[in-house]
Amino acid sequence: MIRTAVLLAAGMGTRLGAVGERQPKGFVEIGGVAIVERSVQRLFAHGIESIVIGTGYRHERYDALAAAYATSSASSTSSTSSTSSTSRLITCIRNERYATTGSLDTLLAVRAAVHADFLLLEADLLYDDIALDVLLNDPRPNVVLVSGVTNATDEVWVQTGDDGIVEAVSKRAADLRDVAGEWVGISKLSLAAYDDLCAWRRAAPAAADVPDYEGAIVAAAATHGIVARRIADLAWGEIDDAGQLRRALGVVHPRIVANEAARAVRRDVLLTPGPATTTDSVKRAQVVPDLCPREAEFGDVLAQLADDLTAFVADPRTHTAVLLGGSGTAAVEAMLASAVGDGPLLVIDNGAYGARMAAIAAGYGMPCVSLRSAATAALDLAAIDAALHAGCDGRRFSHLAVVHHETTTGLLNDVAAIGTLCRSHQVDLLVDAISSYAAVPLDLAAMHVTAVAATANKNLQGMAGVAFVIASRAFFAALPATPGRSFYLSLREQYRFFAAERQMRFTPPVQTMFALKQAVLETKLEGVPARYARYTAAWEALLEGLERLGLATLVPRALQSHLLTAIQEPTAAGYAFDAMHDYCRARGYTIYPGKLAERGSFRVATIGAITAADVRGFLRVLGDYLRTLPTD
Amino acid sequence: MIRTAVLLAAGMGTRLGAVGERQPKGFVEIGGVAIVERSVQRLFAHGIESIVIGTGYRHERYDALAAAYATSSASSTSSTSSTSSTSRLITCIRNERYATTGSLDTLLAVRAAVHADFLLLEADLLYDDIALDVLLNDPRPNVVLVSGVTNATDEVWVQTGDDGIVEAVSKRAADLRDVAGEWVGISKLSLAAYDDLCAWRRAAPAAADVPDYEGAIVAAAATHGIVARRIADLAWGEIDDAGQLRRALGVVHPRIVANEAARAVRRDVLLTPGPATTTDSVKRAQVVPDLCPREAEFGDVLAQLADDLTAFVADPRTHTAVLLGGSGTAAVEAMLASAVGDGPLLVIDNGAYGARMAAIAAGYGMPCVSLRSAATAALDLAAIDAALHAGCDGRRFSHLAVVHHETTTGLLNDVAAIGTLCRSHQVDLLVDAISSYAAVPLDLAAMHVTAVAATANKNLQGMAGVAFVIASRAFFAALPATPGRSFYLSLREQYRFFAAERQMRFTPPVQTMFALKQAVLETKLEGVPARYARYTAAWEALLEGLERLGLATLVPRALQSHLLTAIQEPTAAGYAFDAMHDYCRARGYTIYPGKLAERGSFRVATIGAITAADVRGFLRVLGDYLRTLPTD
Repeated sequence: MIRTAVLLAAGMGTRLGAVGERQPKGFVEIGGVAIVERSVQRLFAHGIESIVIGTGYRHERYDALAAAYATSSASSTSSTSSTSSTSRLITCIRNERYATTGSLDTLLAVRAAVHADFLLLEADLLYDDIALDVLLNDPRPNVVLVSGVTNATDEVWVQTGDDGIVEAVSKRAADLRDVAGEWVGISKLSLAAYDDLCAWRRAAPAAADVPDYEGAIVAAAATHGIVARRIADLAWGEIDDAGQLRRALGVVHPRIVANEAARAVRRDVLLTPGPATTTDSVKRAQVVPDLCPREAEFGDVLAQLADDLTAFVADPRTHTAVLLGGSGTAAVEAMLASAVGDGPLLVIDNGAYGARMAAIAAGYGMPCVSLRSAATAALDLAAIDAALHAGCDGRRFSHLAVVHHETTTGLLNDVAAIGTLCRSHQVDLLVDAISSYAAVPLDLAAMHVTAVAATANKNLQGMAGVAFVIASRAFFAALPATPGRSFYLSLREQYRFFAAERQMRFTPPVQTMFALKQAVLETKLEGVPARYARYTAAWEALLEGLERLGLATLVPRALQSHLLTAIQEPTAAGYAFDAMHDYCRARGYTIYPGKLAERGSFRVATIGAITAADVRGFLRVLGDYLRTLPTD
Repeated sequence: MIRTAVLLAAGMGTRLGAVGERQPKGFVEIGGVAIVERSVQRLFAHGIESIVIGTGYRHERYDALAAAYATSSASSTSSTSSTSSTSRLITCIRNERYATTGSLDTLLAVRAAVHADFLLLEADLLYDDIALDVLLNDPRPNVVLVSGVTNATDEVWVQTGDDGIVEAVSKRAADLRDVAGEWVGISKLSLAAYDDLCAWRRAAPAAADVPDYEGAIVAAAATHGIVARRIADLAWGEIDDAGQLRRALGVVHPRIVANEAARAVRRDVLLTPGPATTTDSVKRAQVVPDLCPREAEFGDVLAQLADDLTAFVADPRTHTAVLLGGSGTAAVEAMLASAVGDGPLLVIDNGAYGARMAAIAAGYGMPCVSLRSAATAALDLAAIDAALHAGCDGRRFSHLAVVHHETTTGLLNDVAAIGTLCRSHQVDLLVDAISSYAAVPLDLAAMHVTAVAATANKNLQGMAGVAFVIASRAFFAALPATPGRSFYLSLREQYRFFAAERQMRFTPPVQTMFALKQAVLETKLEGVPARYARYTAAWEALLEGLERLGLATLVPRALQSHLLTAIQEPTAAGYAFDAMHDYCRARGYTIYPGKLAERGSFRVATIGAITAADVRGFLRVLGDYLRTLPTD
């Protein structure tokens, strides 16, 4: 599985004239975005998790790009949290002698930052990203991409043997026996082949001509079986001079735009509390070669997922995530059934999901007390404190369970305050964070939370089918055997099995895990605080529009999650939720009914791969619908 | 959601000369397959479940094609089973006046067989199936596909308004104000627009020129907002004359082959007991527009899935499938926890999965007796009979649970014989059919089976993450409340919730359900008996090769499932399973270790989207590996 890409970006772009003097070639903008940034975005969209850029000329531009993609993965409110480290998604390494050396020396310069097989791209390319699919799907470890004839000028021609192995490259086709295609500048290299390229260069330091990396690849091709893979029709162009730039703008870019439009998945905007709207890249991440989930390679994916999911809310050195195949409720049941022995358990119930936790506990016959609270008001902390004092049948509560974001109404419960109470009463706090995780700031240590249950398909913007519980490793290791509880939903057994075998206990949803891997990468790229800010901006647009339309929300603004808003239904005669829903859905926006207990409301979520502009689009449609109703 | 396609196939192909006299135009072969069959295959691969062909000239060829795709969905061994009905995936309807009328009359002729919005294709087209993706993803209900300039001759040019709505078509570009593109002959039509086309034709029966359907679409375009969608670069060709045939062979087909290769997912052959190797079309079926699973549209998908899954083993009028998000074990636990009240339960244990059922029952504290039997020998039916006679602590057993195909060793248990015993003892038979369902013949009624648990990702060739239990509706409706059991895994509550709401109780894995829908369609297309025959052929190739290599199987041949084979490990010094596994995997074949209890064996499954040729390829690799071992 390829997770790394190297970009060669040291070149001076002297042939680009004034454009090349203003900026390194990768920063030529086409379609409003620098071509190197476009390349970076497409690489991340294809599951590449680490990009190493070999820089030189005007390296500071690349450094700035890398900084823009550096993200703090912590959503912590606590500045002392050890989870607030910055993870590097792009690393720039400078070839100090870029002015006098070639691309091979730039490739050598990044050696220390490359730890596995990788994609290798020239930074000044504009390309249809099907090129990445082709290389990632090719079973062979060393592949150079070639295209049909482009007439782009300055072509590098490639000659191969009958076995497809690269034999020679030349800018003069006449020098070659025959031509397999044009060198595109996108390749896949194994670490072993890369090391040989490095050795080859070091062995010839005195060569008069400093070689380009293409020549080194030819030299290593026979040893490592480096083959040429041809995509005859590939839309691509290098941008080395003004003519190539004109071609890129006039021919290549329009073709790429058309191809991307043909491959795009229809965008339906879900304003529902999850599954949320997803990116096309998360959708496509499900399409992977078949893989047995007992393979070590998949174990590595799971282990990294567990770390990454944990890092959003806790320190992965002390905490971990136990993954389960199932819905969010499966994770909540697993958390309660695995953690709460004889109890007693105090459940805070101010909505359907609090009530559900009480029902799960009751189903298993756990000693359990429900503390009811209004679904549209802040929790009464004094009442919780009193309940914890009182205990249950003369016993201290062992656990308290609360929903963080109660999507019945969009109310956000104050988990930090409850955590403080639980700490003072020495009660373990279990949080249903299904609808808050990866958006609302959560820090298990700082907020005195023992465990949270969450799921892939809400603020993480992944696909439904995977849920998980995050807690300290010590917590999982100490979980007791719990006779009478579910076999499938045992966190104790799943934790132990994974620790021993680096596999899930039961067949996991492999493809959904790959979607989650992509969703986690995209969450890291955006950063949880920025994601919450985006959701909040969408929610603010919603509230503003609702006010204009004369519609009131159910929960006071200060208590709202920013993620889901319960709205009082219009009182106009002729209004019907189903009609409103169908009207909006036919126009691309899916909204959600109120919970049964809250008749008279409907709900609009502002999560997923959406923006405030989408919400404003919805509000226009909602306004149109409301105007179809007779006025009193 | 578009599930229907209509092919216009009545034309006489007079301009094709001798080729057209031999056969209708759709039967011109390119790349070894008739272009209409290629089109049919691509439509099914895109989730189209019903194809209606309007025939005329040499209609018998199309009738034969339809018959070849008619499949008996029943795997029943009982000829009296009501499940042995033949489902029609292709329906041919003849335009009797094909010789004197045009394509519009052929379109009219199929009206009665069309029940929803549909794709409309000319039958003599060779096209890149990205055309289908584009139409299926377009949010607009009425869309005509146009391409850039093909120079294919005989082009039909399309003129549109600024809003993209089709205004005119002509074979003379000069007749048009401007040209939006060439008419491809692939469209998407709403039922409402179709009905207007029909009405338009009927209103003008005396017209001197019998109109083509293109003209009718132009006439209806303004009313129904029929737009032209352009794919500039689309590889396609109509085959109406010898020149077009040459172009299709020399230009269009090579481009399509190259495009398909670029989009193909790397094929890794899983010889593991599931997840199994899947088709690219099942993989791609996961990529769908975001959809809230509470929408009626998704409820329809689930309801049809329940019927279709049931039809493989029982009559969907009396039986149904209850779907769950989770692994196969989740379904087995749900079946046991929901069906078995106070018991007692008799579990047949002749492998890891029998033992697992006993562990689930023990976990819940169900009164349960395990009847152990050797993992490599046939069950002793007399012993089972005796155990059923004996009962448990003076009580009759309420349920017997058995694994149909025990993948610990590849042993197939005789469920029919056990069913007969259970019937005579009035004991409900619960079957873990996870590794047999959709391959080994199963008929719940004929075999006296009360319920079976199965999963999407084995012989169904779908993706992991969905499991289900099939039983009679009466069984599900009568399930008792089972205090003390899992909240998430309650078949009783899931059945009732779906019956009331046509939704799943908890967020289902939406994308995995769409993969399952595609996998079910492909299972219907192949037919369960034919699938078992294909697996059996692969297994026979395996046994033949193993014998040649001097490797013995664990289970006597007559008891083997044909789906998974446990093989005694080589005794050669230097042999190690991990080394053999890695050697084979590096060459594209993934094999499976033995179960812990069966050290000294490894396992090879012969299920999934594989053939005997794949198994022979594996055997060559296995032979190569064995030759690397030192000989004694």
